[in-house]
Amino acid sequence: MEHKTEQEAQFFQLLKEAALLKEAYYLADWDTQTGMPEKANEYRGELEGYLNELIFEKENGKEMAHWIEYFTEHPEDLSEFGQKVFKKVKEEFTRNHTIPADEWAHYTKLVAQSHAIWVEAREKQDYQILEPVLEEMVDCVRKFIPLWRQDEKTPYDVLLNQNEPGMTTEKLDALFAEVRDGIIEIRQRLEKEGTAPERDFLYRFVPKEQQERFSRKVAAQLGYDFDKGRLDDTVHPFMQELNRCDARIATRWNEHDVMFAVLGIMHEAGHGTYEQHIDAKYDYTPFAGGVSAGMHEGQSLFNELVIGSNLEFWRQVYPFFQECTEGAFDDIDVETFYKALKYSQSSLIRIEADSLTYPLHVIIRYEIEKALFNDNLPVKDLAKVWNEKYEEYLGVRPDNDTDGVLQDVHWPTGLFGYFPSYALGFMYATQLYYAMSKDFSMDEAFAEGRLDAPSQWLKEHIHRFGGSKSPSELIMDATGESLNAKYLLQFLKQVYYPVYGIEE
Amino acid sequence: MEHKTEQEAQFFQLLKEAALLKEAYYLADWDTQTGMPEKANEYRGELEGYLNELIFEKENGKEMAHWIEYFTEHPEDLSEFGQKVFKKVKEEFTRNHTIPADEWAHYTKLVAQSHAIWVEAREKQDYQILEPVLEEMVDCVRKFIPLWRQDEKTPYDVLLNQNEPGMTTEKLDALFAEVRDGIIEIRQRLEKEGTAPERDFLYRFVPKEQQERFSRKVAAQLGYDFDKGRLDDTVHPFMQELNRCDARIATRWNEHDVMFAVLGIMHEAGHGTYEQHIDAKYDYTPFAGGVSAGMHEGQSLFNELVIGSNLEFWRQVYPFFQECTEGAFDDIDVETFYKALKYSQSSLIRIEADSLTYPLHVIIRYEIEKALFNDNLPVKDLAKVWNEKYEEYLGVRPDNDTDGVLQDVHWPTGLFGYFPSYALGFMYATQLYYAMSKDFSMDEAFAEGRLDAPSQWLKEHIHRFGGSKSPSELIMDATGESLNAKYLLQFLKQVYYPVYGIEE
Repeated sequence: MEHKTEQEAQFFQLLKEAALLKEAYYLADWDTQTGMPEKANEYRGELEGYLNELIFEKENGKEMAHWIEYFTEHPEDLSEFGQKVFKKVKEEFTRNHTIPADEWAHYTKLVAQSHAIWVEAREKQDYQILEPVLEEMVDCVRKFIPLWRQDEKTPYDVLLNQNEPGMTTEKLDALFAEVRDGIIEIRQRLEKEGTAPERDFLYRFVPKEQQERFSRKVAAQLGYDFDKGRLDDTVHPFMQELNRCDARIATRWNEHDVMFAVLGIMHEAGHGTYEQHIDAKYDYTPFAGGVSAGMHEGQSLFNELVIGSNLEFWRQVYPFFQECTEGAFDDIDVETFYKALKYSQSSLIRIEADSLTYPLHVIIRYEIEKALFNDNLPVKDLAKVWNEKYEEYLGVRPDNDTDGVLQDVHWPTGLFGYFPSYALGFMYATQLYYAMSKDFSMDEAFAEGRLDAPSQWLKEHIHRFGGSKSPSELIMDATGESLNAKYLLQFLKQVYYPVYGIEE
Repeated sequence: MEHKTEQEAQFFQLLKEAALLKEAYYLADWDTQTGMPEKANEYRGELEGYLNELIFEKENGKEMAHWIEYFTEHPEDLSEFGQKVFKKVKEEFTRNHTIPADEWAHYTKLVAQSHAIWVEAREKQDYQILEPVLEEMVDCVRKFIPLWRQDEKTPYDVLLNQNEPGMTTEKLDALFAEVRDGIIEIRQRLEKEGTAPERDFLYRFVPKEQQERFSRKVAAQLGYDFDKGRLDDTVHPFMQELNRCDARIATRWNEHDVMFAVLGIMHEAGHGTYEQHIDAKYDYTPFAGGVSAGMHEGQSLFNELVIGSNLEFWRQVYPFFQECTEGAFDDIDVETFYKALKYSQSSLIRIEADSLTYPLHVIIRYEIEKALFNDNLPVKDLAKVWNEKYEEYLGVRPDNDTDGVLQDVHWPTGLFGYFPSYALGFMYATQLYYAMSKDFSMDEAFAEGRLDAPSQWLKEHIHRFGGSKSPSELIMDATGESLNAKYLLQFLKQVYYPVYGIEE
């Protein structure tokens, strides 16, 4: 890349060094999760700790401080692209420097401790065990918020913005109210007028090798490039990108629940394809990656939810599924199979929820987070509020805290304001689906065997830009309007009513 | 670890940082060789290049220069252990600072270029293509040698010492002459008086999964700890340690040559077990690893050559081999199987050679290297000399340079003085075998199912010391005498004569 000035070149070199150290860190982390020898854990902690120190020094040390000051005074020394990059880097740098060092150290220490406490609390099914440390963490974050930003309308807006740039409580309140009410209405109709599909056959025994054979081919057909990625075994499925030519996915296998891995791999492949499609010109800059958690989730859910709910897609791949499973599904035709995938019921655990009820799980967490930071909801009341909301929105009540407020790792690891991303992903995915449907018919493309047609469209309209456009710019440019909840509801009706035998 | 002074603590911290960066580098390198996505190659080059820069800076930069000077003047600020470590670090530091920077840069550039040239030369089977760059490299090394050390007897001694501390041309001349003459004598007896065993059945088809099932169990039984290691697929088999709790092995599989992977995994597991047994007190110091290439090869060859040539070992594991191979070897009894493994014949390729002829391949390379640096053998004559020596020692002559002088990657990557390690490993392994036989009977231990008895003995006498003792100290302390070629010859006779039906 040509730079406008020697200063710009040096600044970009510093960014590249930080990016390379992160790549080393991500590789170590991927390795930790996919097969590092068990007893190497302590040594891995030393390695990751040291790499983190180096990354922190590159991003927040003297050299970076110099460039922040220099280019603030001499913006003319930066090219247009350099200015865009600088703006983003300066934002992050400033945020990391507004918290007094000792307070930040105290907070990160709490975060480091709380994971083990959370594990213990889960074992004993007792939220009381987690409460003290969680309360201290929430108190810290409450103090940090006004130091981070003072120009947002509410404290929670600051946290939202760190995860989904441009998002506000006001916008989310409106979007989520519409989604919540819409889903409740759909669920009521299914219950009153619908007939639930049978799905017991989905839990037939399917050996891992058969699942893997099918899943790999489908992931590749959907556009995931195995020459720029790989698939491994892990405990908690994930995608980890090292760079745009190395976006790795990993899954867990359940031989009595074949669709866990199949849909999981389609999901992670969606994340991976996003990274693989990003333009090389953003390499080693803060734009070299998906723009936000919500937009990333939009890409993975596009595969899992939009494509996974498409009958024509299943018509294409089901014969190969039957071949891979060697007769185990010979008595099930594709329509029956497809309907089984769309069985919906209330449940307690977010990550096991079906696509109709999932957004409700997220909205519950959103409302609790908002109350924590905007209305000073006491941390000691979290379990109680949690259980009440599950009863109200989903009609189920956890028997114990492990199946309730202790189920997610997010809060105990200091992730506040992240949960909404999951529901935003549902909205992005479905809005993008209706937008691309104006350009081509997904059903027709699938019928012609072009299973990667959506991925190619997304590459053009979303993926290639990496982090260089904000989520709201991306969705506006790709679909012609800002994020709108109606597409998600339209989609859910379009999928679930026919499966449940309801004519609209 | 408690340190004598604050200065010592800081010095050890610097060593630890270098060690951690190397760990990151080794992980990246392991990943590159075991399944990194193909198209990520260029990005991986950037990452490894940057990590190398950081390592170089830690080991040779200003901070290290400061400590070298400081502790040379203030040795009293170092504990006894600190002094030992400092001595080793200073040696390495000094060696890296005696070559003018521009000359070193020129040399490393040649090394970087020559690999691709070697690949091309191999494809075209033409040594002439490699010769110019190799000649330049050899000229550089010839100039570097007197800068590195002036206290060695001959120039080649300097190179030997870099690979096997304490080794000299004088010692090797004597050892290798004895080995060479002894092997030639054994081979003559085999040819005149012996009957070669049949071995065609070794090339029966055995699926990878069956090979892997057998090899994993055997590696574990021999003492390789899979909780501190893992086994992966690769092109060129290797062991890569990240730390003493993470020593990984990798192999290639040939479904028509089951023993390639079986013996290869035993070999690499020997390297891995060495690393796994090193005392934790050497962590993050230059002693945290096997002491030399030769001693490392001694441990791997102990598994492959000594244990792999033991009939009682095969009696123990052969029933499981027959089980794994599901009937393919039901008609072969263990004695017949064992004898087949010890078939010996002249061959052109070192890495395919059997255990009797292998040392001759190494000795040929040793004699050529010695002539290059001590007698100014012209680089242009390498192919000719190579072919003559193969004819003389092994009675075979390469048809082309790819099967001749171009077969090894060592010289084109600047590894001179390394080859002797392979033959030293044979000698170390057999001398250790006879020494441990004074403490216990390997046959009896195996008959009792204690397949890890040798590995436990080696842990106690060799492994745990890591790099804290020199190879000559280790072999002296473990066996009561310095390295002696007679044990290798005694071992080869003990193994090959009975197989070939010769009574001694």
